Amino acid sequence: TSPVRPLPAIPSGLPGVTSHGLQGEHFLSVQGLSKDQLNHIFNLAQTFRVCINKERPLEHILKGKLMALMFYEVSTRTHCSFQAAIQRLGGRTVTMDTNTSSVKKGESLEDSVMMMSGYADVVVIRHPEPGAVARAAAVSRRPVINAGDGVGEHPTQALLDVFAIREEIGTVNGLIITMVGDLKHGRTVHSLARLLTLYNVQLRYVSPPGLGMPDYITQFATSQGIHQEEFNSLEAALPDTDVLYMTRIQKERFVTLEDYERACGHFIVTPHLMTRAKRRMIVLHPLPRNQEISTEFDTDPRAAYFRQAEGGMYVRMALLAMVLGKC
Amino acid sequence: TSPVRPLPAIPSGLPGVTSHGLQGEHFLSVQGLSKDQLNHIFNLAQTFRVCINKERPLEHILKGKLMALMFYEVSTRTHCSFQAAIQRLGGRTVTMDTNTSSVKKGESLEDSVMMMSGYADVVVIRHPEPGAVARAAAVSRRPVINAGDGVGEHPTQALLDVFAIREEIGTVNGLIITMVGDLKHGRTVHSLARLLTLYNVQLRYVSPPGLGMPDYITQFATSQGIHQEEFNSLEAALPDTDVLYMTRIQKERFVTLEDYERACGHFIVTPHLMTRAKRRMIVLHPLPRNQEISTEFDTDPRAAYFRQAEGGMYVRMALLAMVLGKC
Amino acid sequence: TSPVRPLPAIPSGLPGVTSHGLQGEHFLSVQGLSKDQLNHIFNLAQTFRVCINKERPLEHILKGKLMALMFYEVSTRTHCSFQAAIQRLGGRTVTMDTNTSSVKKGESLEDSVMMMSGYADVVVIRHPEPGAVARAAAVSRRPVINAGDGVGEHPTQALLDVFAIREEIGTVNGLIITMVGDLKHGRTVHSLARLLTLYNVQLRYVSPPGLGMPDYITQFATSQGIHQEEFNSLEAALPDTDVLYMTRIQKERFVTLEDYERACGHFIVTPHLMTRAKRRMIVLHPLPRNQEISTEFDTDPRAAYFRQAEGGMYVRMALLAMVLGKC
Repeated sequence: TSPVRPLPAIPSGLPGVTSHGLQGEHFLSVQGLSKDQLNHIFNLAQTFRVCINKERPLEHILKGKLMALMFYEVSTRTHCSFQAAIQRLGGRTVTMDTNTSSVKKGESLEDSVMMMSGYADVVVIRHPEPGAVARAAAVSRRPVINAGDGVGEHPTQALLDVFAIREEIGTVNGLIITMVGDLKHGRTVHSLARLLTLYNVQLRYVSPPGLGMPDYITQFATSQGIHQEEFNSLEAALPDTDVLYMTRIQKERFVTLEDYERACGHFIVTPHLMTRAKRRMIVLHPLPRNQEISTEFDTDPRAAYFRQAEGGMYVRMALLAMVLGKC
Repeated sequence: TSPVRPLPAIPSGLPGVTSHGLQGEHFLSVQGLSKDQLNHIFNLAQTFRVCINKERPLEHILKGKLMALMFYEVSTRTHCSFQAAIQRLGGRTVTMDTNTSSVKKGESLEDSVMMMSGYADVVVIRHPEPGAVARAAAVSRRPVINAGDGVGEHPTQALLDVFAIREEIGTVNGLIITMVGDLKHGRTVHSLARLLTLYNVQLRYVSPPGLGMPDYITQFATSQGIHQEEFNSLEAALPDTDVLYMTRIQKERFVTLEDYERACGHFIVTPHLMTRAKRRMIVLHPLPRNQEISTEFDTDPRAAYFRQAEGGMYVRMALLAMVLGKC
Repeated sequence: TSPVRPLPAIPSGLPGVTSHGLQGEHFLSVQGLSKDQLNHIFNLAQTFRVCINKERPLEHILKGKLMALMFYEVSTRTHCSFQAAIQRLGGRTVTMDTNTSSVKKGESLEDSVMMMSGYADVVVIRHPEPGAVARAAAVSRRPVINAGDGVGEHPTQALLDVFAIREEIGTVNGLIITMVGDLKHGRTVHSLARLLTLYNVQLRYVSPPGLGMPDYITQFATSQGIHQEEFNSLEAALPDTDVLYMTRIQKERFVTLEDYERACGHFIVTPHLMTRAKRRMIVLHPLPRNQEISTEFDTDPRAAYFRQAEGGMYVRMALLAMVLGKC
């Protein structure tokens, strides 16, 4: 579905290629990213996608580079995606097993990152506590990439969400993007909404009562000139929607199971419901899903969530290559 | 012990080399494999063994290829063997840790394999439920290799068992092959018996009462013209045996510990017992062993079980190279 | 802080380069290592450090080589350091997960190492029982490297400790080296003291009552002509010290928490205490630390413990290249 664009040649480490400003820097948040930086990441990610599909060699790009993985919280998708990304570019991984590691002997995050950054060229950290990754970055001897810190940031997820929109529809500008689910606690929708303010989009929010988008996000979007609207029902928001961004609703957020089931019944994507949607639109989800999207919908061409996940690998490849100064 | 055979040159991706029909296909079962396909696998495996022993480079063959490992059940030997196999050929691995993964968040096997097949070029799956791997293959975007699914299939184990016989004795045809242990529940002996029907062999079964080879296996072998015989004692079956295939007996299968010990006493390979066997024969075991084979026998030249395990790596190398269309 | 030394060229597998005698051998203990062998290891480690800092390619050195990791006990630092070391040289790893492996099915260490040494070119083992690694080596078909066996040996730790001294100060000879903490149970200080007897050093011991260096170590050092002295307080031993080697004190060694806190209060490195030390000296620690070294001291140039940990990677690179016959 993506339009033909000329592929940029893969830079080969010549002087000047790292003018994007990410080389050697920590990557902790989407805040402060410029439109030019985004375009650099997305163009490179797209190039990598095409190269892999055509079996063009990419292993020279990060040959000899080591990436340390420090995951203090489980995240299969992000862990596997980073593992795949560095290896597709010829780099290698060192994994710190936090289940059975010095962490259990009481080693501090700071000491662990001091150690790992002595072995590797870049350090990817996931942590349940907001701010923990920034704390680690402050003492790391190598660039740190934030792979999610609690309800804080998950910047590579936001990047891959926007990349999916761009790849599937060909542009982000001019779209109506509808976010559905627990928007109050959902880290991914916070980062995504923030990043989308760089584009000319309209945002729609659909959530159970009491789980709406926080004020500080909506106020920020307003200040950036973004038109936003709240809806009570998915049916009402759906017809004009170009991108339907579904998220998990945690059972724990509801007082009674009845409340949960009542809320969820309104927020499930099914083939029947989707007859109300446009023909040319897409459904995204950060995955893993619970029941928000019926598996019967998976074969619909608008079901873009697995392509979205795959795209995360290309985005992380681009980011690693840029941070390591090779693209 | 293997006779001199001319080594086939390693194919280098020229058109026609993938006429074996495994390229891009799932590998779920030994059923349907032709003798030609078996020979292709075994010749390639043998070539790889020689190349590694001579330190000839093989890393170009699967350079740039990623293998995903999804093990929903522990299997150290199979896991390590696949890891080693892909890396010996220059490929790399992405491991999904099912202990601490989205699996625990309730993600379905299908969704997980959709994700992993977006990152990798081939997916190797182990699962405790029969049929689960086929279910995963049905939605996977890349070839799936069955690394064992419960009491279902374990096709690469059967391949490596036959490869061991071929490498150790030089041929499979004309041999008397004796299978010992719990033949009722033993997945490996079922797949092996089935695969051996492609050769001209005689099969002998030695098992405790009630744990004999199931009828559907013996009837299938009979329909293929295989001569089979049941024995009550290992001593009686041993003298003519060319290949003694030992398996574990699970204590849980017996009502009393006394029953177990009585049964097991009859099925233990010791140096003393093996004075009754031919000088030129081999003992195999899928490993890990319990007490079925005395460690005192390990230094006997007929003790082939560790060479058999090593051979598994070469067989998996061959299979990966063929499925990925490189040999 | 290290003086300029001409870097040895990296050997490239020519005949004669493996005259160091470690090629194809198990590496189980520091005992029996000659001064020439130590110098070969340290010179090579230093060369590797410079090459990595200058981004010179090293991946050809162990290309195609597989290292098996068998850790029967958690050791994050050692595990990650070996992983990084082999990969920096272009080799790859196969990891046996002992938490979820055949070990749980009751497979013996010997059987497991027989299997793993069939897949890999070198086997690195960590085990809680003294002597276990030597037991494994006795049946292994490939060289085994001891990555620590209980209160037994941890030879690569001792090597990296001496390497740190050499790199930081430029020489080992003529130094006063003070070891602090629980010297009775500390494996690292036993191996280190033994290795230091190859140099012209003075040793000082500072430990809580009842936790002093064992007689068999002090007697061995005496027999090698090493001057040793015991101190009751860190303050008293500090002023002349060139290398302060701190170790953990385990709470479990003390009868009451009061005893522990009394003892520990005397053995904590702080910026204030270190005003008593020389300006040109270093503080080492095998890590992870508890409270023996205040984090406020981390920014002091004499705080060498994280550089020491990083050096472990270069030492292990050197050892792997030598054992595998490539340097």
